Amino acid sequence: MAGEKVLVIGSGPAGLSATKELLNMGVDVVIVEKESYLGGTPKKLKYSLLFPELRPASEVIDPLIKSADGAKKYMESIVESAKPEGKGFVVTIKDKTGKTTTEKVSAIIAASGFEHFDSRRKYEYGYGIIPNIYQISDIERMLSENKLVTTKGTPPKRVAILLCVGSRDATVGNTYCSRVCCAVSIKQAMEIKQRIPDAVVHIYYMDIRTYGLMEDKLYWRSQLEYRVGFIRGRISEFMRGPNDTVIIKGEDTMNLNRALVVPYDMVILANGMELGLGSKQVAKALGLEFEEHGFVKPLDPDRLPVQSTRKGIFLAGAITGPKTIADSITEGQAAAMKAYEYITKGVWEEPVKVEVVEH
Amino acid sequence: MAGEKVLVIGSGPAGLSATKELLNMGVDVVIVEKESYLGGTPKKLKYSLLFPELRPASEVIDPLIKSADGAKKYMESIVESAKPEGKGFVVTIKDKTGKTTTEKVSAIIAASGFEHFDSRRKYEYGYGIIPNIYQISDIERMLSENKLVTTKGTPPKRVAILLCVGSRDATVGNTYCSRVCCAVSIKQAMEIKQRIPDAVVHIYYMDIRTYGLMEDKLYWRSQLEYRVGFIRGRISEFMRGPNDTVIIKGEDTMNLNRALVVPYDMVILANGMELGLGSKQVAKALGLEFEEHGFVKPLDPDRLPVQSTRKGIFLAGAITGPKTIADSITEGQAAAMKAYEYITKGVWEEPVKVEVVEH
Repeated sequence: MAGEKVLVIGSGPAGLSATKELLNMGVDVVIVEKESYLGGTPKKLKYSLLFPELRPASEVIDPLIKSADGAKKYMESIVESAKPEGKGFVVTIKDKTGKTTTEKVSAIIAASGFEHFDSRRKYEYGYGIIPNIYQISDIERMLSENKLVTTKGTPPKRVAILLCVGSRDATVGNTYCSRVCCAVSIKQAMEIKQRIPDAVVHIYYMDIRTYGLMEDKLYWRSQLEYRVGFIRGRISEFMRGPNDTVIIKGEDTMNLNRALVVPYDMVILANGMELGLGSKQVAKALGLEFEEHGFVKPLDPDRLPVQSTRKGIFLAGAITGPKTIADSITEGQAAAMKAYEYITKGVWEEPVKVEVVEH
Repeated sequence: MAGEKVLVIGSGPAGLSATKELLNMGVDVVIVEKESYLGGTPKKLKYSLLFPELRPASEVIDPLIKSADGAKKYMESIVESAKPEGKGFVVTIKDKTGKTTTEKVSAIIAASGFEHFDSRRKYEYGYGIIPNIYQISDIERMLSENKLVTTKGTPPKRVAILLCVGSRDATVGNTYCSRVCCAVSIKQAMEIKQRIPDAVVHIYYMDIRTYGLMEDKLYWRSQLEYRVGFIRGRISEFMRGPNDTVIIKGEDTMNLNRALVVPYDMVILANGMELGLGSKQVAKALGLEFEEHGFVKPLDPDRLPVQSTRKGIFLAGAITGPKTIADSITEGQAAAMKAYEYITKGVWEEPVKVEVVEH
């Protein structure tokens, strides 16, 4: 496609997947990435193993990064604006020194992803205040660097993981479920048991959401093979205990509603997903709309999930809501298809209006 | 793409979505459909409203059916074999009279979908034996035909919905979660309350899996706006009660583990998803492999979710596992992209082998 160029914003799994497919088709791709490296959040936070197969994250992410070799890249840069010109856009790109460049592109794929919920916003859980309280996003790095130890420098022998931190919680404004934290938490529980076989690992939950084919590879396996304990309970707060332990206060809602006061060496908060400032800036620069949970709104979430509300701009990955890596890759492929149709055939679908059936 | 032709097997959301994109790109599409109509399971079972927006299913499915106008169609037909020839396949198609035709195609997209679990296999729930016990798949049709009544011809005033029938249940060989039944069940509970506002509707569950952005539109809304009751409990059996009522026997695992013996006018079993005989036949005819739960195995579920294990054959929708309609549509777009790359550029990716990190 001589002369056809697509801008991809963000180089996580979704953006790289879209880039790969477009390059395969001979389309020029310009990547704009605000960080100094490709790979998105999996690289930023040094993801360890991926669920449900417990395969190294690098096995999935590194080939995607490699496949973007042929793209033109603006690193440590953001898109400042996208002005329509002809059938495409003139895009202004600003680097970290403030220098701006313009690129003329035929279509745009916004794949700038999510950010993890900052658990300090749930102050009652003590993150950032009480020692030995971490987030799943911290633990990924600790596992991949093989440095999972308490403040005393020893492997934790009693670990609690608390699900739904910043998710399913109207008190922090996030009524939705972040979809992947159950699976990530159970995967981390199994990794901890692999490394510290005599550790006790308890997962405190509201509902376990290892949906679809993940179920037995995570929820069942973690119990049968690794003896991870699941406690359906409500945690009200964490307190600093003696010897840098952390004490959970709460209620076990499954067993006679008994009160819980339990000490742990380490507590892991399964912090959820939000649209980060990066994606908010992208949405603003591109003139996109937001849906009610604060993510970017597709033109029609059921029918046209990768079309944005603005002609010529497509969406992929967690910019439209919590996603797994596999789903982000699939959406990258789908967005590449729709962008390719747009630049080669001018295809842009409109939402359908069908009268609502009243009974 | 004069001369390039892709075979799409199955005309549900995934197959129609792939068809639409390929036709948009000027590729000839041949659809083989074993039923006499397009639209797949949503049409077969007369789906009522779709979750989470409670929009009519026809609003999503009918435009997809329309978009397949330009495809060549073999209705009430199956693919008998696909033999490699050149870079493509010679496909033998058999219609219901037994007559066979051959088509030469450059690539194949298998999108033949799932079947609902037959609840008679969980005999203790009495489906097909005790009156007023239905499956969610029956209720969709009753709702869309506006015929939701008990055997007495009156609207049910007490309704129980039991989740995970044929899912998360090793006794029937299905250890996985079917992913959509929670959402469908809650949607049906809200539809029942819309039509019969004084009805009592209870949902018996293990975990509620309205993951991602579905959460508040279904789980929260059903409780706050419609007063649907959720009971975390274990049901052991249903019995026929007086006056064609159905009596539940079980245990409420949330409230003092009290025993439950509760009468209802109607019981709905949330029957899960399986790979049906249709897709099994497709997989066999195409020489595809199965994964451990009995669905068709992608070449690499994380990296290459829409490539099959056989070169030139792509996968979309519930043939690889339980999927929502929106996910099936996205996968149809992704499969169209990969098939298009394959037929125009010869792109076929191989799985990566990276050494597994041992800690």
